[in-house]
Parts: sequence; C-alpha cells; structure tokens
Amino acid sequence: METLEIRTGSREEMIDITGQVRTLLRKNGWKNGALLLYCPHTTGAITVNEGADPSVVRDITVNMRKLVPLHGDYKHLEGNSDAHIKTSMFGPDQMLIIEDGDIMLGTWQRIFFCEFDGPRNRKLWAQFMSS
Amino acid sequence: METLEIRTGSREEMIDITGQVRTLLRKNGWKNGALLLYCPHTTGAITVNEGADPSVVRDITVNMRKLVPLHGDYKHLEGNSDAHIKTSMFGPDQMLIIEDGDIMLGTWQRIFFCEFDGPRNRKLWAQFMSS
Amino acid sequence: METLEIRTGSREEMIDITGQVRTLLRKNGWKNGALLLYCPHTTGAITVNEGADPSVVRDITVNMRKLVPLHGDYKHLEGNSDAHIKTSMFGPDQMLIIEDGDIMLGTWQRIFFCEFDGPRNRKLWAQFMSS
Repeated sequence: METLEIRTGSREEMIDITGQVRTLLRKNGWKNGALLLYCPHTTGAITVNEGADPSVVRDITVNMRKLVPLHGDYKHLEGNSDAHIKTSMFGPDQMLIIEDGDIMLGTWQRIFFCEFDGPRNRKLWAQFMSS
Repeated sequence: METLEIRTGSREEMIDITGQVRTLLRKNGWKNGALLLYCPHTTGAITVNEGADPSVVRDITVNMRKLVPLHGDYKHLEGNSDAHIKTSMFGPDQMLIIEDGDIMLGTWQRIFFCEFDGPRNRKLWAQFMSS
Repeated sequence: METLEIRTGSREEMIDITGQVRTLLRKNGWKNGALLLYCPHTTGAITVNEGADPSVVRDITVNMRKLVPLHGDYKHLEGNSDAHIKTSMFGPDQMLIIEDGDIMLGTWQRIFFCEFDGPRNRKLWAQFMSS
C-alpha cells in the first residue's frame, strides 16, 4: 500500500489528483492490472469526472451542497453531517484500469479527491493488483 | 482490457448489459476472480439493480432527474451538468464477482449502463483479475 | 467466494459489519491484497463511514429518506422504489485494502451494511484478491 498526501484549501472542493496518481505508478513500476484508490477519511471521497472545463467541478460542488445542505436535521455535534452523507453518496473507493504503466482514462476524465469538510491535510491510499 | 460497445436511444435511460458482459466472460475464458467494469465517459455510469420489473429503472431514472434537474445553477456551457453530477453519484466503476465463468448476481440483479446525456455511442471497458 | 449473513431490524438502518468482515479474514487466512464486498440484494448497499458517533449513521439514514422519500412518483408495485434508488446511489460494491491480515481503515471508519427495505435476512458476498 502506498500513500498520497493532499492539502485542501476550502470547505468543499474537488482537487485533480491525476498527476499524483501517475507519479505513483511510475515510482512503483506498476504496469498492468487495476488500481484501488481508497480514502481513509469519512468526510471526503474519490471520483472521476470531467477535468477540461473547471465549471464542471464547480457545478458538482455547488449542487451537491444544495442537495445535502450544511444545516439541516442533524444530531452529530461536529456539524459536518452533510460531509458524511456526501461521502457515502460518492464513495471512498475508486477502481482504475492500468495498462502499460498508465491509467486508462476517457478523453475528458480526471481523478478527483472530493473535499467535503476542509480545509485539511488528507491522505489517500493506493493498492495495485496486477492482472 | 476489453471493450463493450453500447448504443443508447434517449437522453436518460438504463440499459441492461448483463448479456454482453456474460458474452465477454465466455469469449475471454475468464473463470474465477473479479471483474472491473469501467465507464470512460463523464456523463454515464454503471450500476447493478433490479431488472425483473422495468418500472424499477423507470423510477430510478425519473426520480434522479427530479433530484438533479436538467436546468439549474449550472455554469458549464454544454448544458449537461446534471449528467456529470449523476455520474459521480452512481460512479463510473462497478466490481463483480466471477465464479466458474459466470457473474455472481443476486436473484433480481442485472447490470445496467446508465445513460445521462444521450443518445450516444458509448464504450465500456472491462478488466479481469483472477483470484 | 465467502458469504456473510446479516439480520436487519428495521426498514432503514446501517449495521456495522466490521467485526464480521475481520472474522472472515482470519477464518480464510487472507493476508495482503484487496477485498471486494458485494451485496446481492437490490434494496441494500455497502458503505464505509464514521462509526464512533452513532448520530452519524442516524443523520445519513434520516436525510437520505428526505432526499429519496418512501412515497413519490413511483410505478413499481412493490412500493420500495426509494430503496432501489438509494441502492444505486450508495452502490452494492465496496473495495477494501487488506494488509497483514487486517482491513486498512481510517481512524473513524467502519464498514456498514445499509438496509433500505427491511427488516430482512440479508447476505453479503466477499471475494479476496491477493496482491
């Protein structure tokens, strides 16, 4: 298992980590198989979505906040229940196909860490399975 | 990595791809392990849900459109931000257990490609990991 | 493939299955790799979230019911379309990293079976992939 370190800068944001994941592949010589990216936090998730137009991640972030608002019928005293709910909706795990040492992504796809309760120092774990 | 091709017929629909995935298993002789299905598009996803009563996928499609409407507070100029949001909610990856060359599915489960911005020609990728 | 058995006690709840998954690892001698947990039901899902404060799973359950209500524009005659929708939002599969025979979880993380249409007797499937 390898670890990525991420510093987030605001309460809710999506950070493109595709470059960091590529560096990890090269460093470890991972060539062909599948990569499990796993978020060990309960107020953050991993997703894959469009990275070409930054409006897309803005639209996702803003509208997820509307769907699951910061204030609501919450009992959890830390005041971040919205972040926990969004974490289970997006999921803490992301599987990726690896071929010839690179991540197989669609034309517009980038890998994002989704911060739902930042800013914080975050870690992501990566486990490679060779095919 | 293998590729499945799908032609979708409307803007939002869920297409049962279980038969196509089974054909892929047989063609490649994949016997025991896990299969990663991966959608390289940013306005489509893969899920597993009930396939016996077609009302279920109708209810999912109609109510996801209510939760994440076509028109809203969106900046992305392509006008399909709803599709991007739904893609991250359902997720582009789906893991399946493979035993004796068949997909292990529950009694009512079928595998669906979720089109959120069609009609389009779509591809899905499949990576097998033997156990 | 191995099977876990779970008895749920109400219509909607999240049951901590971390202990049962740990027992499965020990019983099978699974040491290093990744574990696929898979739910063969179409009205239940698996997620990872905070287990320290029980208010968190209460907040998730209550607010998911608000987002996807029991009664609505549903055609499926069984009356549990809300449960099917939530199943695709949380997803039936969960990947976990296994090291030295233990599940790699963040400080506050626990594994939950999400019951959306109980009470019922449920099964979960587990497939280990060694790294």
